Amino acid sequence: MSNQSINANRLLGRIRELGEIGRDGDGRLVRLAASDSEKLGRDRFVAWVKDAGLDVAVDRIGNVFGIWRPEGTGDRPPLMLGSHIDTVVNAGMYDGCYGVLSGLEVVETMKAQGFVPSRPIAVAAFTNEEGVRYAPDMMGSLVYAGGLGVEDALATMGTDGTTLGEELERIGYAGPEEPGFLQPHAYIELHIEQGPVLERESILIGAVENLQGISWQRVTIDGDANHAGTTPMSMRRDAGHAAARVITFLHDRAIASNTPTVATVGCMSFEPNAINVIPSRAAFTVDLRDPDEDRLKAEEAELVAFLDRLAEEEQVSVSVERLARFEPVKFDAKIVGLIEKAAKDRGLTCRRMTSGAGHDAQMIARIAPSAMIFVPSVGGISHNPKEFTTDGDLVAGANVLLDVVRQFAREEE
Amino acid sequence: MSNQSINANRLLGRIRELGEIGRDGDGRLVRLAASDSEKLGRDRFVAWVKDAGLDVAVDRIGNVFGIWRPEGTGDRPPLMLGSHIDTVVNAGMYDGCYGVLSGLEVVETMKAQGFVPSRPIAVAAFTNEEGVRYAPDMMGSLVYAGGLGVEDALATMGTDGTTLGEELERIGYAGPEEPGFLQPHAYIELHIEQGPVLERESILIGAVENLQGISWQRVTIDGDANHAGTTPMSMRRDAGHAAARVITFLHDRAIASNTPTVATVGCMSFEPNAINVIPSRAAFTVDLRDPDEDRLKAEEAELVAFLDRLAEEEQVSVSVERLARFEPVKFDAKIVGLIEKAAKDRGLTCRRMTSGAGHDAQMIARIAPSAMIFVPSVGGISHNPKEFTTDGDLVAGANVLLDVVRQFAREEE
Repeated sequence: MSNQSINANRLLGRIRELGEIGRDGDGRLVRLAASDSEKLGRDRFVAWVKDAGLDVAVDRIGNVFGIWRPEGTGDRPPLMLGSHIDTVVNAGMYDGCYGVLSGLEVVETMKAQGFVPSRPIAVAAFTNEEGVRYAPDMMGSLVYAGGLGVEDALATMGTDGTTLGEELERIGYAGPEEPGFLQPHAYIELHIEQGPVLERESILIGAVENLQGISWQRVTIDGDANHAGTTPMSMRRDAGHAAARVITFLHDRAIASNTPTVATVGCMSFEPNAINVIPSRAAFTVDLRDPDEDRLKAEEAELVAFLDRLAEEEQVSVSVERLARFEPVKFDAKIVGLIEKAAKDRGLTCRRMTSGAGHDAQMIARIAPSAMIFVPSVGGISHNPKEFTTDGDLVAGANVLLDVVRQFAREEE
Repeated sequence: MSNQSINANRLLGRIRELGEIGRDGDGRLVRLAASDSEKLGRDRFVAWVKDAGLDVAVDRIGNVFGIWRPEGTGDRPPLMLGSHIDTVVNAGMYDGCYGVLSGLEVVETMKAQGFVPSRPIAVAAFTNEEGVRYAPDMMGSLVYAGGLGVEDALATMGTDGTTLGEELERIGYAGPEEPGFLQPHAYIELHIEQGPVLERESILIGAVENLQGISWQRVTIDGDANHAGTTPMSMRRDAGHAAARVITFLHDRAIASNTPTVATVGCMSFEPNAINVIPSRAAFTVDLRDPDEDRLKAEEAELVAFLDRLAEEEQVSVSVERLARFEPVKFDAKIVGLIEKAAKDRGLTCRRMTSGAGHDAQMIARIAPSAMIFVPSVGGISHNPKEFTTDGDLVAGANVLLDVVRQFAREEE
């Protein structure tokens, strides 16, 4: 089984070709969901799907599917592979595209090798995974899994004042299919890690067994904007200092926990933001993640308790707004086991791991057994032109996907 | 002596009248240095000076002087009183104006009472004390004291692209006198405290014996912008967390020192400032103040040492830019003693204190014995429409100024 291999040149060539679609005047890759440049990316993918002899289907939220329906597979639920092809601003070329194009590559390889699967195989490119232009992220797969109404999603106003539904109409990707029209038998997503773990441990394949729960909150602290020179330290209500205490609290707690908990304060603003004025307001975001729901809840509760103490000790007022909350996702143990076995059979190093980032697989996991395969990201970098995975690692990951898909199909023969 | 009193209605009326000059469409008081609205304020002050029978002189940097030269005082160096009438954006009506108008009020009171001083008395309104439109602040008094060349100051480019010299010409306040043309015998500045100390301690008069040294620095910390979900805590180079550690270090150290040291981080920015990205850069300002130069130097050195440790521990790079540095100023002990005595003779509570804010007096102290008188600011607020000092406190402060001036003049009779 491990002698079969995908067509490396075809896969790598397509990744690079798609990576050139949507460059702006400064050479930055910008293929925001439902934009003109993303339309060009979609068109290219659809052309490749047709070249491969697959059926093309588009649903109302713009998710695109290339469907291989070998004779005799009839109405059986398809095995679904995929990811997304929209990007952030100034993106790398691997995030999302690698999974979509590898799914197509696996199908083409199987066809070329005369392998006939026991069920259809669908390759999905989900709409607006990045969530840069329209919130929330992972929108296409969320709608597909029934977690968000299609009408609500289409009515979403973008950061540029556009409406997603109108933009999908405009670029010709407001399809006729109802989201969820194909009930997947299972879903497998191949993706770059977007983190440093595999590279650090010199491991080639990640068998992703779960995905962190995510808690996003915005905290606003209000104090008094007094003069930095004339207000004794003891008489201050310094919102900036209170915010700094939250950052060090979250950091020290996560470090000390010796758990996978991660805590990040990514956005921060001070008001009035003047050199000689004590900040009257500090507003910042808190990103908490943990693969264990109970632990994530406990972290949230600890933050609440700390903010209560802080308000008392620093004589500030604190308000908290919840921005997003996703429970952790457990992927399908059988698929994870198949991934491990496929890696082992090819002699590739492999470890079970947690996804720290959100992916379409976490949405599709609501309606079908799902799992993910990770390959290393050099430096752990993604969402950046420096995002890089070696050709060898890309090919190895696609071959593992090929083996897992063949195994799935064979089991039912 | 304490039976004499300034004309309270005249002083308070003028403070309010000047406070209405320069209101913008939203009712905000905006009288930026050398602007059209500040010209109107200058014109009003000059008209009052002329009404009082004083000579008007304007120097090349736009400082305006009302000079009372009683017969027989000849060429003796004048006693100088004053402050400034330019304001910040959305200012209160007391900062600066109170000192200028009280100086004029004291002169008019003495004239009306037939008191003849032993030397001329000059009332100064210094140009651009606030430094909002043109940097640095306290510019007019700095130039007057020889700390900045007049040509350099006139060439200063404003935040609006204008040049101070051209603006002074335009509004008619580029005078013929060379800055420093009057060598003050002494300088006394009456001002609202702009801090909370007098109000907190229920004390009416501050005899300001020194002024804090000021150290302004900008610190930039660079780390890595990795994914907030996928990067384990132990592998982060989090510039935001490093910045938070600086804030808590400075705060905790100042609190624990039990000295007048104050430390403030007023400006802060994170990059890329995204909720799910670890900050790659945090840039912030540090405002350190202390009335003791050795202690201020020690605080600066401790910050440098801490930043070195931080760079090592957090694996970040740190750069520091010096923005401003003023040594502490010691005011004249004799004048401070006269202020205390004048308050005591009137039965007013008084304490010696340090000015936490910068004032024109710190510049004039370079060329003449100087001191300041403070009255309470409600809530410690200034540079804000909520800036407020009660009428009774304003009158009491002006009467103390009157007594100190009379004492000065009497000593030489």
